Amino acid sequence: MNTDTRRILEQLRDGTLSVDEALLELKKAPFADIGYAKVDLHRKLRQGVAEVIYGAGKTVEQISGILETMQKTGQERVLITRLDEEKAESLIGRFPLHYNATARIATLGEAPTPDGIGPIVVATGGTSDMSVAEEAALTAEFLGSRVVRLYDVGVAGLHRVLSHLDELMGASVVIAIAGMEGAMASVLGGLVDCPVIAVPTSVGYGASFHGVSALLSMLNSCASGVSVVNIDNGFGAGFLANRINHMEAKR
Amino acid sequence: MNTDTRRILEQLRDGTLSVDEALLELKKAPFADIGYAKVDLHRKLRQGVAEVIYGAGKTVEQISGILETMQKTGQERVLITRLDEEKAESLIGRFPLHYNATARIATLGEAPTPDGIGPIVVATGGTSDMSVAEEAALTAEFLGSRVVRLYDVGVAGLHRVLSHLDELMGASVVIAIAGMEGAMASVLGGLVDCPVIAVPTSVGYGASFHGVSALLSMLNSCASGVSVVNIDNGFGAGFLANRINHMEAKR
Amino acid sequence: MNTDTRRILEQLRDGTLSVDEALLELKKAPFADIGYAKVDLHRKLRQGVAEVIYGAGKTVEQISGILETMQKTGQERVLITRLDEEKAESLIGRFPLHYNATARIATLGEAPTPDGIGPIVVATGGTSDMSVAEEAALTAEFLGSRVVRLYDVGVAGLHRVLSHLDELMGASVVIAIAGMEGAMASVLGGLVDCPVIAVPTSVGYGASFHGVSALLSMLNSCASGVSVVNIDNGFGAGFLANRINHMEAKR
Amino acid sequence: MNTDTRRILEQLRDGTLSVDEALLELKKAPFADIGYAKVDLHRKLRQGVAEVIYGAGKTVEQISGILETMQKTGQERVLITRLDEEKAESLIGRFPLHYNATARIATLGEAPTPDGIGPIVVATGGTSDMSVAEEAALTAEFLGSRVVRLYDVGVAGLHRVLSHLDELMGASVVIAIAGMEGAMASVLGGLVDCPVIAVPTSVGYGASFHGVSALLSMLNSCASGVSVVNIDNGFGAGFLANRINHMEAKR
Amino acid sequence: MNTDTRRILEQLRDGTLSVDEALLELKKAPFADIGYAKVDLHRKLRQGVAEVIYGAGKTVEQISGILETMQKTGQERVLITRLDEEKAESLIGRFPLHYNATARIATLGEAPTPDGIGPIVVATGGTSDMSVAEEAALTAEFLGSRVVRLYDVGVAGLHRVLSHLDELMGASVVIAIAGMEGAMASVLGGLVDCPVIAVPTSVGYGASFHGVSALLSMLNSCASGVSVVNIDNGFGAGFLANRINHMEAKR
Amino acid sequence: MNTDTRRILEQLRDGTLSVDEALLELKKAPFADIGYAKVDLHRKLRQGVAEVIYGAGKTVEQISGILETMQKTGQERVLITRLDEEKAESLIGRFPLHYNATARIATLGEAPTPDGIGPIVVATGGTSDMSVAEEAALTAEFLGSRVVRLYDVGVAGLHRVLSHLDELMGASVVIAIAGMEGAMASVLGGLVDCPVIAVPTSVGYGASFHGVSALLSMLNSCASGVSVVNIDNGFGAGFLANRINHMEAKR
Amino acid sequence: MNTDTRRILEQLRDGTLSVDEALLELKKAPFADIGYAKVDLHRKLRQGVAEVIYGAGKTVEQISGILETMQKTGQERVLITRLDEEKAESLIGRFPLHYNATARIATLGEAPTPDGIGPIVVATGGTSDMSVAEEAALTAEFLGSRVVRLYDVGVAGLHRVLSHLDELMGASVVIAIAGMEGAMASVLGGLVDCPVIAVPTSVGYGASFHGVSALLSMLNSCASGVSVVNIDNGFGAGFLANRINHMEAKR
Amino acid sequence: MNTDTRRILEQLRDGTLSVDEALLELKKAPFADIGYAKVDLHRKLRQGVAEVIYGAGKTVEQISGILETMQKTGQERVLITRLDEEKAESLIGRFPLHYNATARIATLGEAPTPDGIGPIVVATGGTSDMSVAEEAALTAEFLGSRVVRLYDVGVAGLHRVLSHLDELMGASVVIAIAGMEGAMASVLGGLVDCPVIAVPTSVGYGASFHGVSALLSMLNSCASGVSVVNIDNGFGAGFLANRINHMEAKR
Repeated sequence: MNTDTRRILEQLRDGTLSVDEALLELKKAPFADIGYAKVDLHRKLRQGVAEVIYGAGKTVEQISGILETMQKTGQERVLITRLDEEKAESLIGRFPLHYNATARIATLGEAPTPDGIGPIVVATGGTSDMSVAEEAALTAEFLGSRVVRLYDVGVAGLHRVLSHLDELMGASVVIAIAGMEGAMASVLGGLVDCPVIAVPTSVGYGASFHGVSALLSMLNSCASGVSVVNIDNGFGAGFLANRINHMEAKR
Repeated sequence: MNTDTRRILEQLRDGTLSVDEALLELKKAPFADIGYAKVDLHRKLRQGVAEVIYGAGKTVEQISGILETMQKTGQERVLITRLDEEKAESLIGRFPLHYNATARIATLGEAPTPDGIGPIVVATGGTSDMSVAEEAALTAEFLGSRVVRLYDVGVAGLHRVLSHLDELMGASVVIAIAGMEGAMASVLGGLVDCPVIAVPTSVGYGASFHGVSALLSMLNSCASGVSVVNIDNGFGAGFLANRINHMEAKR
Repeated sequence: MNTDTRRILEQLRDGTLSVDEALLELKKAPFADIGYAKVDLHRKLRQGVAEVIYGAGKTVEQISGILETMQKTGQERVLITRLDEEKAESLIGRFPLHYNATARIATLGEAPTPDGIGPIVVATGGTSDMSVAEEAALTAEFLGSRVVRLYDVGVAGLHRVLSHLDELMGASVVIAIAGMEGAMASVLGGLVDCPVIAVPTSVGYGASFHGVSALLSMLNSCASGVSVVNIDNGFGAGFLANRINHMEAKR
Repeated sequence: MNTDTRRILEQLRDGTLSVDEALLELKKAPFADIGYAKVDLHRKLRQGVAEVIYGAGKTVEQISGILETMQKTGQERVLITRLDEEKAESLIGRFPLHYNATARIATLGEAPTPDGIGPIVVATGGTSDMSVAEEAALTAEFLGSRVVRLYDVGVAGLHRVLSHLDELMGASVVIAIAGMEGAMASVLGGLVDCPVIAVPTSVGYGASFHGVSALLSMLNSCASGVSVVNIDNGFGAGFLANRINHMEAKR
Repeated sequence: MNTDTRRILEQLRDGTLSVDEALLELKKAPFADIGYAKVDLHRKLRQGVAEVIYGAGKTVEQISGILETMQKTGQERVLITRLDEEKAESLIGRFPLHYNATARIATLGEAPTPDGIGPIVVATGGTSDMSVAEEAALTAEFLGSRVVRLYDVGVAGLHRVLSHLDELMGASVVIAIAGMEGAMASVLGGLVDCPVIAVPTSVGYGASFHGVSALLSMLNSCASGVSVVNIDNGFGAGFLANRINHMEAKR
Repeated sequence: MNTDTRRILEQLRDGTLSVDEALLELKKAPFADIGYAKVDLHRKLRQGVAEVIYGAGKTVEQISGILETMQKTGQERVLITRLDEEKAESLIGRFPLHYNATARIATLGEAPTPDGIGPIVVATGGTSDMSVAEEAALTAEFLGSRVVRLYDVGVAGLHRVLSHLDELMGASVVIAIAGMEGAMASVLGGLVDCPVIAVPTSVGYGASFHGVSALLSMLNSCASGVSVVNIDNGFGAGFLANRINHMEAKR
Repeated sequence: MNTDTRRILEQLRDGTLSVDEALLELKKAPFADIGYAKVDLHRKLRQGVAEVIYGAGKTVEQISGILETMQKTGQERVLITRLDEEKAESLIGRFPLHYNATARIATLGEAPTPDGIGPIVVATGGTSDMSVAEEAALTAEFLGSRVVRLYDVGVAGLHRVLSHLDELMGASVVIAIAGMEGAMASVLGGLVDCPVIAVPTSVGYGASFHGVSALLSMLNSCASGVSVVNIDNGFGAGFLANRINHMEAKR
Repeated sequence: MNTDTRRILEQLRDGTLSVDEALLELKKAPFADIGYAKVDLHRKLRQGVAEVIYGAGKTVEQISGILETMQKTGQERVLITRLDEEKAESLIGRFPLHYNATARIATLGEAPTPDGIGPIVVATGGTSDMSVAEEAALTAEFLGSRVVRLYDVGVAGLHRVLSHLDELMGASVVIAIAGMEGAMASVLGGLVDCPVIAVPTSVGYGASFHGVSALLSMLNSCASGVSVVNIDNGFGAGFLANRINHMEAKR
C-alpha cells in the first residue's frame, strides 16, 4: 500500500487532489493494491470448468441472452440446472441443447471423456430420490467424472447395500442421497474410506419436514468423513464430488 | 341414561330436588351411568403390574410417603425412575431398596422370574446411551421380561450390528436406542420381524438439538414396524416392550 | 407368520417336496431387478407379510412394472398405499385391484381370515381423521387382523369415549388417531392395558402446524404403553399393530 | 371492582367528602417516579386491583423502594410474584410480608373476603405443576376469589378427573394447569360450561421442549371455551380468572 | 344459559309438563349416530349453546345429514363455521340458511335478542383481519351477545385506538385480533379492565410465519388479563367471549 | 390531570355526573390530558410524505375507494405496494397510475426531484432478488431520493462487489438485498461507513426456509452499522433509507 | 467524521506536515499483527469511529495486549463491550478505564462533546431491559451523541408513553428496547417520524424464547421506519443510531 | 445365496436342522453370503489411520481401558477429542500423552511427516472460533497433513481476507470456520477452486441460536464447492480435509 498512499499524498500536496478526493482514495486503498483485478483474473484462470447457469427464477429470454453471450465468448460447454420442461422446450428450438427431464438439466456441448481419481458412486435410498440423484450424476459426468449409480439401496434393506460393497469400496467419492430419515449417509460413511457427500432430499411427509429430518440426521452422522450440502442440492454434490475427484498436487 | 334421568325428573317434580340441583345431576348423567366407578375398578384390576413412581421433581419426603402408603396396602414391588443418587441414598436408609446409579432406578422387592414371548433386545448406538438403555432394560426386567443387551453397535460400524444377527432375530421386541442421527432404528427395523421401539437420546452436540435430530430420524424411519417414544424415555420403552412381550389372546 | 416359508420347509421335512423343488419355491426371484426399484421379494421371507408398495411418487408405469414382476414370482397379495384416485383408475384396468378412495389404498388378492390375539381398535378424534384411520384399518385387515372402528370419539366429548369402554378394554392393540391437540392418545393410554400406537394427523389449522402439535402431545403422553409413528402414517400404525397382534412365542 | 375509587366518589356524592378531600384521596401520587420504575398507582384506578410487583429481575433494594412508595401513598395490599426465597427473607425483615415458597409469592396486607360469581377451580395434571398452580391460586385468592384446588388429576387417570365432577361443574372459572402433553385442558374444557384458562407448564423432558408441547396442545384444544396464557404464567391465569369471576353488568 | 333445559325443568316443577313430557323434551336423541359423525345433542345440555358444526373437511352430504338429524330432534339454531362459498350454495338450496361469505359462517335460525353483561368489542389491527373478526363477531351475536366492531385500529396509528376509548372501556369483553406483530393485544390489555381475548391471525408475510409472530407476541403480553386462542380462531374467541359475557352466580 | 379531575369531581358533587359516569371519566383521564388529539394532530403535520397503500389483501373496490377519498382531500402523490398485475390493470382504467410489474408498485403523481444527503445504493446478491430490490428502489425514488442500483453483486463473486467500491463508498445509505445465505450484508457492512439496511429475501430452496437463513445471517452480522427489516420487505427498506437520507438537524 | 484523517490531510495541504510525516501518521500500523487478533487500525480510517473491542470470549491478557498496541499507535478512545465485572477489575489496575457494570462497558478516554442532528432517545419497556439500554446509550454517548433515556415506558401503560411525546418527537433517532412481546417498537414507530431502531431483549420467560418473540414482533412491525438488530445487541443499536445522527451530505 | 440355501434345505431334509432352525438360517442368508466378515475385514484393512477416541461422555477409567487395549494390540498413534482438562491431567499420569487445552485434544504417539496434495488452510472469522479451529488443525496434522492457520479473517474486514489470497489459492482444502452469520464460507468458496469444508460454530448470542444461524448460512452458500459439517465439529472437518488431501487414484 505504501507507494499508492504516498502518491495520493503527493498529489494532495501538489494540489492535484482536494482533501475530499484524497480521503476517498485512501478509503479504497486497502483493496486497490490487492485489488479486484487480481480476484477477477484468477477467476478467469479457473474457467477450465464448464460454465453453469442456475435456471430457477430466470426467464427463457434471460437464459437465451446469457447463452448467446457465452457462445460469442467461445464458451463451448454450458450446464443449465433447475430448468423446467416448458422452458427447456423453448430453448431447445434456439440452441442445440440436450435436456434430461428427470434431472431438470440441460447441457450445451458434450461431456468430456471422464477422468479423475476414480468413479463417483451416486447412491439413493429410494426411487423418489432419483431426480436429485440424476442432477448430481449428470453434473459430475458433464464436468468430467465417471459415475456409478446405485439407486434404491435404502438402509431398511441392508442386504441391498451390502450386495454393492465392491462398487462402494472402489469409489473415489460417494454421494449419499436420501430423504425421510437420511440414515444412508451414516451407513455408507461407515463402510467406505473415501469422502462421502450427503444430500438430504425433501422426499417424505409429516415429520420429514421437507428434508429437515434427513438434513439433521446427516449433519449428526456418527461416521467420519461425511459432509453435507443443502436439501435437494444434487448439483452442489455433483460439482464438489467432481472437484474432489480431480484433486492433484499443488506443490 | 333413561332410568337415571326419569328418577331425577321425578325427584324434581316431587320437590326433592330444586331446579338447580336437577340441572347439575343432568349434566353429570352421561358420566354417571358408565361412570368413573367402572374406570376406577378396571384400574384396580390391572394392578397386577408393579407400581411405578416417577422420581423426578418429587422430594425424598414425598417419595417416602408414597412408599409407606404402598407398603401399608400390600404393594410389594415398586419401581422408582429418574431418582438421583442423593435422594436414593436418603431413601435406602428407610426402605430396603436396590439402586442402580446408571439407570437412576430404585426397586423395592424382587423382579419376578422372567417369562413372556421371548427375550427383549436392548441395543444402543454408543456407550453414551447406556443410561437410557439401562433404564429400559431394568424396567423390562423388573416387570418380568428377559433382556439381552447389545450396547455400542452403532450403524457406522455395520459389522458390529451384523455380528449379532442371531440375538436380533430371536428377539420378541427390539428397543433401539440412539442419539445423534438415530439411524439405528431404521437399520434394525429392516433386519428383524418383531416390533421395534425406538428411543432417541439427547446424546450429541450442535445440530443434534438435544435429541431432536434422532427423534425426527426415527419418526421418519423407512422400515416398517418401528414406533417411537419420547427423547431419553427408557422407562417408556421398557414398559411398552414388556407389555408387548406379554401379549396373550383376548378371545 | 412366515407361514408360506414354514409350509415349504415342513413339506420338505415331510418329504412332500424335494430339495430342488423347495429351492425353486423359495427362490422365485429375490432381488428381481426391474431398474427403477429393486423389488425385494426376499423381504417377504424376513418380514413375513404381504408385499407393500408405497404409491406416492411412483408413476403408473412404475407400479405396473412392479406388480407384473410380483405376479410372475407368485406373489398373490399386494397392498399399495398412498395411491391417488387417478392412478388407481389406470391400474384397475390392468390388474384386479380393489381400491378404497378414503384410505387411498389398493389391494391385490384377498385379505386372509383374520386371526391374531384379539381385535385391533382404531379410534379417531374427529371425522376429518378418517382417511388416516382407514389406511390403518385396511392395512391391519389386509395383513390378517380383525379391526373395530371407533370414529369421532374425541376427548372434548369424554362421554363418547367412555361409552366404548368395553370395546377398548377388549382390544389387543389400540391405534389412537388424532390431529389438533392429540389428547386422545393419553386418555386412551390411561384407560387400556394393551399397547397404544398413536398417530398424529395433519388435521387442524394455525398452531397445529400440520400435525406437529399432535405429534409432540403424543410423544409426551403421561400414559405408559404409548408409542408414536409419523404424522398421518396410518399404514405404519396398522402394520405395527398387526405385527403385535400376531406375536407368538420365540422360545 | 374499583371499590376504593367508587367508595370515594360515593362519599363525595353523599357529601361525606369535599371535592378537595376527594381529590387528595385520588391523587396520592399517580406516576410517583422513583427512578428505576414508574410506580403506576393510577393503574389501580383503571384496573381496579391490588398492586402487583413482578419480582424477577428486580433487586431487593428496588422492591423495597417500590414498597415504601406504595405504603406512603396508602396502598395497603400488594402482591409480589416470582420472588425467590433469598430476596423474600431480606424483605420480610423490613416489611410485614407473608411469603409462600412454593408459589414464590409474597403478599402485603390481607386478602379480602372472597366474593365473585363462584369458586375458581385450579386443577393440575401432576404434582410437579404445583408451583405454577399455587401462583395462580394465591393470586386469585388475594384478589378476592374463593379457590378450590384439584391437584394431580391428570388425564392418564381419568377416574381421578371424573371423581371431581361436582367441583368442576360448580366452578365459575377453571384453570387447567399441565405440562408434558397438556391434554387436561381439552378434557376439562369438554366437561364444564364455564371459561377454562389453560396454563402450560415447563414440566417434562425431551420433546416437551420446556412447555412448548403443552402450549401447542392447549392452543389446539378441540373443546370450546378454552384460552391460553404463557408457559408457567400462573399469575396471569389467576388474575384473569378473578377478573372473570367478578364480571358485573356494564349497562 | 341452559335456558332451554332450565325452562323445561321449571315447567316440570310448576306442573306445566309431566315427567314423561319433560323426558321426551330432554331426550330428543342425544348420541344420535349418523355414521360419520356422532351428533352430540347432549352437549347442548352440558354446554348450553346452539349447536355448532365445524364445516372444514366435511362434505356437503355430511353436513346435510347432520342438519337433518338436528332438525328432527328439534334443534332450531345451528352455526356452521369454516364453510366455503361453494358448499354454502349447495346447502342453501336445501336448508333455510343465512350465509356470510366474509366470515365463512352459515346460520340456521335466528340469533336471540342480545343480552349479557355488556357489549363485546371486536377490534382488529387491519382490514385484512376482517374475516377472522367477522367469524368472532357473528359467533358472539348468534349466541346472544351484542357486538361493537372497531376495525383497522392498529397500534401504529395510536390515535385511532385512543379515539375509541369510550367503546373500549364500556366493553364486557374485548376481542383483540391482529396479525403481523400482534401488538394490539398488549395495548388494549393495558387500557381496559375487562378480559381481553387475543386472536393472532395469519395475516402478514416473511417473518410473520403465518401467525406465529403474532401468537408469540400475544402470549408474552405484558398486560394482565389477556389470554390467547389459536391462530385465526375467530369462532373460539367469539364463543368464549359470549360465555364470559353471560357469567352468572353459581352459588 | 389536575383541573380535569377537579372538574369531574365537581360535576359529581353537583349531580351533573353519576358515580358511574364519573368513574368512566376518571379512567380516561390519563389519556385525555395528553390525548389522542395531540397524537392525531402530529400525524397530520407530517403528512408531507406521500401516502402509502398496502395493496395485498385489498380488493380493487377497496383500493379505488381509498384513492377517491385521497383525491378529494387533495392528496396528489400515492404509492401502492404489493399490487398484483390483474388488480393494477383494473385500477389503471380508473386512475392515472404508473405500474411497475417487477416491483408490484403503482404510483399516482410524479416523484419529486430527488434530494437528500446522497444517493441510496440498492445492491442485490442475485437476479432473483430484483423484485424486492425494485420495490425498495422505486419507493425511495418516489419519496424523493436518488437511487443507484447494483444488482447481482453476490459475495461468491467478490470481484463484482469490489469493482463498485466508488458507488458504495459514496452512498448515504446502502440497502443490501440477498436471499440464500445473506452474506452480502456483512460484506457491504464491512466496506462502507454509512447505515446499511439489510433485506433478506425468500429466494432459495431447501434450508433457506423461505428467507429465514438470510434473515438470521443478517441479524448476526459481525459488521457494525447494519440493521434488518422483514423478509422481502423492500418497501420498508426503501422507506427507511429515504427517511435517513433526509435527516436534518432537530435543534 | 474521519476528523483525524481529514486533519492530517488538511495539515499536509496547508504545509504543516510533509508527505513523509503524513504518511507516518496514517500508517501507524494498519494490520498491526499481535497474533490472536489483527487489530485493524485502518478500519478507523474507513469507519471513522473510536475503536471497539468485543470483550466476550477474550481473556484479560488478550484485551490488555490489544489495548497496549492501540495506545502505542495513538488510539486515544476505546470502547470495550460485553466486559464482565471480574475482567474489568483486572484491567482497571493496568489502564485508566471507566467501567459501567450495568452496561458491561469499559471506556478508555473521554467521550467527545456530543453533536449530531439531535438527541437520540433510548426507550425501554421495563426495568429489566436496562442493561441492554445502557449498552446502547453509553455507546452512542461515547461516539458523540446526546442521549435521552425513557425507561420503563412499556405499552401496557400507554399513558406513560404518551406523557413523553415531546421527547420522542424531538429525537433524531429512537432506540426502542423491549423483551416479552416487543410491542413498543410498533407503538413508537407509529408516533415518531425519525428512524426507529428496535432491539429485542432476552427478558421474559416461557414463550418469549429468550427474545425470539420480541424479535419476530419487531420484524413484523406494522409501523414504517423501523429496523431491527440482534437480540440484546445494545451496542449495535447505539452504534447505528450515532451513525445516523451524524449523517451529512455526501455531495 | 444359492449354495447356502441348498445346504440348509438338505440339512433340514436330513433332520440335522429343525424347521425352526432352518427358518432362522434362511432369514440370515442375505447377510451370510456377503457377510459381516467381509465388512469387518475391510475395516481392518483401512486401520492405517490412527485410532480416534471421542472423549466426551467417557470416564477416565473407560478411556484408560481403551488405551490399554490399543497399546496391547500395537496401535501406536491415538487421537482423543473433546477431552476436558481435568480428565487429561489424570490420563497424562498414566500414558505418555500430549494435551492441547485450546483444542481439547490429547495425542498418543507422534504425528507423521506431513504429506498429501497440498497444505490445508484453516481459516476463522474471529478469535472466539479458535478452539474449534485448533481441533480441526491438530486433527489434520496428526493424520498427516500440513496446515496453514489464518485466524481472525472475518468478512467484515474484507481486506484481511484479501491479504491472504496467496495462501488461500495454494490450499488443497480450505476449512472455513465461523459463528454468527457464517458468511466466511461463501466468501472463501467464491475465491478458491479447491473443496471448502464449512464448520459453523456456536459462537455468538441472541439470534445466532448456538450456531444454527451460521449452519443455515453455510448450507445455503451461493458458492459451489462448499459442504458443511455439524456445529463445532472441528474434528470432522479436519478428518475429512485430511482424507481429501490424501486422495489417490483408485484405478
